Amino acid sequence: MAAPPPALDALRARLAELADLADLSRLAAWDQRTMMPPAGGPARAHQLATLERIAHDLAGADEIGAWLDELEPIADTLPEVDRDLVRVARRDWERTRRVPVELATEVARAAAEGQDVWQEARAACDFSAFAPALARNVELARETARHLADPGQGPYDALLGLYDHGLTAERVSAVFGRLAEALPPLVAEAAARPAPAPLEVPVDVQRRTVEAILRRLGVDDEGWRLDVSAHPFTAWVGPRDTRLTTRYDDGELEALLAAIHEFGHGLYERQVAPELARTNLGAGTSMSVHESQSKLWENHVGRHPAFAPVIAAELTAAGFAIDPPAVVAALRRVRPSLIRVSADELTYPLHIVLRFELERALIEGGLDVADLPAAWNDGMRRLLGVEVPDDAHGVLQDVHWSAGAFGYFPSYALGCLIAAQLWERLEADLGPQDDALAAARVEPIAAWLAEHVHAPGRRLDTEPLLERATGRGLEAEPFLRHVGAIAAAG
Amino acid sequence: MAAPPPALDALRARLAELADLADLSRLAAWDQRTMMPPAGGPARAHQLATLERIAHDLAGADEIGAWLDELEPIADTLPEVDRDLVRVARRDWERTRRVPVELATEVARAAAEGQDVWQEARAACDFSAFAPALARNVELARETARHLADPGQGPYDALLGLYDHGLTAERVSAVFGRLAEALPPLVAEAAARPAPAPLEVPVDVQRRTVEAILRRLGVDDEGWRLDVSAHPFTAWVGPRDTRLTTRYDDGELEALLAAIHEFGHGLYERQVAPELARTNLGAGTSMSVHESQSKLWENHVGRHPAFAPVIAAELTAAGFAIDPPAVVAALRRVRPSLIRVSADELTYPLHIVLRFELERALIEGGLDVADLPAAWNDGMRRLLGVEVPDDAHGVLQDVHWSAGAFGYFPSYALGCLIAAQLWERLEADLGPQDDALAAARVEPIAAWLAEHVHAPGRRLDTEPLLERATGRGLEAEPFLRHVGAIAAAG
Repeated sequence: MAAPPPALDALRARLAELADLADLSRLAAWDQRTMMPPAGGPARAHQLATLERIAHDLAGADEIGAWLDELEPIADTLPEVDRDLVRVARRDWERTRRVPVELATEVARAAAEGQDVWQEARAACDFSAFAPALARNVELARETARHLADPGQGPYDALLGLYDHGLTAERVSAVFGRLAEALPPLVAEAAARPAPAPLEVPVDVQRRTVEAILRRLGVDDEGWRLDVSAHPFTAWVGPRDTRLTTRYDDGELEALLAAIHEFGHGLYERQVAPELARTNLGAGTSMSVHESQSKLWENHVGRHPAFAPVIAAELTAAGFAIDPPAVVAALRRVRPSLIRVSADELTYPLHIVLRFELERALIEGGLDVADLPAAWNDGMRRLLGVEVPDDAHGVLQDVHWSAGAFGYFPSYALGCLIAAQLWERLEADLGPQDDALAAARVEPIAAWLAEHVHAPGRRLDTEPLLERATGRGLEAEPFLRHVGAIAAAG
Repeated sequence: MAAPPPALDALRARLAELADLADLSRLAAWDQRTMMPPAGGPARAHQLATLERIAHDLAGADEIGAWLDELEPIADTLPEVDRDLVRVARRDWERTRRVPVELATEVARAAAEGQDVWQEARAACDFSAFAPALARNVELARETARHLADPGQGPYDALLGLYDHGLTAERVSAVFGRLAEALPPLVAEAAARPAPAPLEVPVDVQRRTVEAILRRLGVDDEGWRLDVSAHPFTAWVGPRDTRLTTRYDDGELEALLAAIHEFGHGLYERQVAPELARTNLGAGTSMSVHESQSKLWENHVGRHPAFAPVIAAELTAAGFAIDPPAVVAALRRVRPSLIRVSADELTYPLHIVLRFELERALIEGGLDVADLPAAWNDGMRRLLGVEVPDDAHGVLQDVHWSAGAFGYFPSYALGCLIAAQLWERLEADLGPQDDALAAARVEPIAAWLAEHVHAPGRRLDTEPLLERATGRGLEAEPFLRHVGAIAAAG
């Protein structure tokens, strides 16, 4: 075999550095949210900004363009992985360079200010106090989109592409349209049923149960951590260094579901093919596929009735006697509600459908910021049948827009859809998983996901990956079958 | 006032980035030793190496030389702080550039291999297995010294300067000579006395006592952490983010002394003048002054008989009833022993005197690696009156030489001497501290240190700082008076 071209060695060395810097950035962010003494905040902001600036300079440097110019004409002679590496490197490099540094700086500043203003406005239930900052973020997002867009690409699609390369508003609209049509009747039906009594599981029981269930899923002390943070998240600091967080704050099983959800994110990054480590391909491919992995473990394993005896046994062993049907009732409860983050499996995607419609209209110019609260409240009535009492429980509830993130929301619901698609295919391949789940035997699930979803890393974008795994593109029907069964059982 | 020259702005921006990267490197190292799951090790090695390489490139870049060339001719017109900033920037930049990158890489590789070989050799009690790796490290250290040395500077002084700018082997020899002369008779005397019975303090009592005493010294949750690690250390991750560690592993008060020691390191970095933050001046000035700060709190506060009632009260409150004299007996015990890290106040510096003599001879060529064990054993007999039973308890006990660190050891003993000098001066300025210590009133001590030692950061090197604080250069007499009093009281 011929020696690799020197440009490829140089490119790989740079990509390895960038991968290391991304690990360090995740480590610093994890520490900030779990370990850092509060007074460390100002210094941490400097440290993260410096890391970001250095990574940006290294990622957008001229020499990468020269290496790519050298490699692209001979791409056909390279091993397949290197061909993908060059292709994705070109995409990332151009994306980095398209946004002028002054604009990126301004976006970051407006995002930081926007979050401060939003926090105050939300506390005061006063949308008008937030409106100017939001209008500024919308304007900057449009300008960013103009720089990012490929020829002929619309501004919202350009922003979507930051989180999910190749995804379009048209594709999202098609599947979200099905949700907006099929889900509300199921929601109305569920809303008419009496709610089950709330659980009151003590925090120390929750904690022991979370630890026991994670252990059943394959979490060990050798390569994982579990900590507490205000909002659950996962930090992958290295291929074998995965840090989950959850929070314990009520008597229900939210902490457990959050931990299982985060486990799904963590497992994805751990099962990317080792040969892709420290390259631009060695990570999850998109926000929606990432979210599909957390949702698959949360919705299709954690909430599965066949898994309920395992959870019931661990809760009971931890000192909270409960039977499996009560666990199912708690985990499969459906209630239309005002707040996205505490929504159930069935209503959750409708919260996202609304945000997608609104943010797309904000970016494309069909909706003024001033008209947003009314549009929000109308949407909640139409999709979920609930009345919004005030903006804090409505349009001001999420941080995303205040931080300038537009195009991010869809991945939350796409994750639910993709999870259902993958689960159907997994059960078609492996057979129904009920017996395996009842025995907490999840290795075959993890192995199927490794082969069909995790191993390729960023070599395949969302829909090509999905087609390879299931033979079909993005669609809503498997999810609708999944929640239809829940609604019928409720 | 005129606007600062653009070269100064550029230099300050670079120095701020380097300070942030140093913070991140300390964070990653802290995490590795306290939080990281074991399987994260290989990725962490990559992350730290990348950070190191990027920092090295930024610190040694050509443009810094150009900025300095522009600023040095107008240094007299700059504010005093900027004059110091430029002066120290020149020194650091030249030091970074003097060692060829190939040599630095080879040194790092040999250090990593050396530590592996050393661990095995120590476990097997087999110096000959370690000798080739040590010889390689000595050779590379000599070569590094040749590159680092100023004209006319000897190789050992060049290495010393890495840890303590301006310090010379001649100065060290002068004060260490006094120790080698004055201490052994005191040691012999102490060795003849019966040893007090060992304490058996349960680990949970130790833990509560450490936390209570640190709180008395000013540690709070807002800007500090205390964790456990295999070897106690301090990480300063930001000016108000200080992380101490200790270890709990026997019935004595080692964990408490270690925590007080680390507190001294942490307080130094916190009390550097805020205006120096994120510059090259915003850190402790040298290893020996750093060690003086930990030793001042450990030896002159923590072990002070007047402070013993505070410790006794906290131990008693935590469930281990003890009276102050028993605390004093435990903390002021003197026993010649084989192992440096567990040595007492009086014998500790003699362990360092030996290491200094030997490493200087290794670097300057007066001692062959093959003859090192015999020289070690002779020195232990001469200085401490003990017989070394095997190399694991002798020449193989420390990691430093296996990691290629020569010139580092002296700071451990110099720290003891400087601490005693500063304490004498502090009591001359503030009056005897007995009553204050009995009441755990340490703010005046911290304030005196802030003004006389901490605030200048790197603006003053070791001896100029000491002269400013005490009116005198480095000397052994205050330390000898201090341990003389202990020996007399024993």
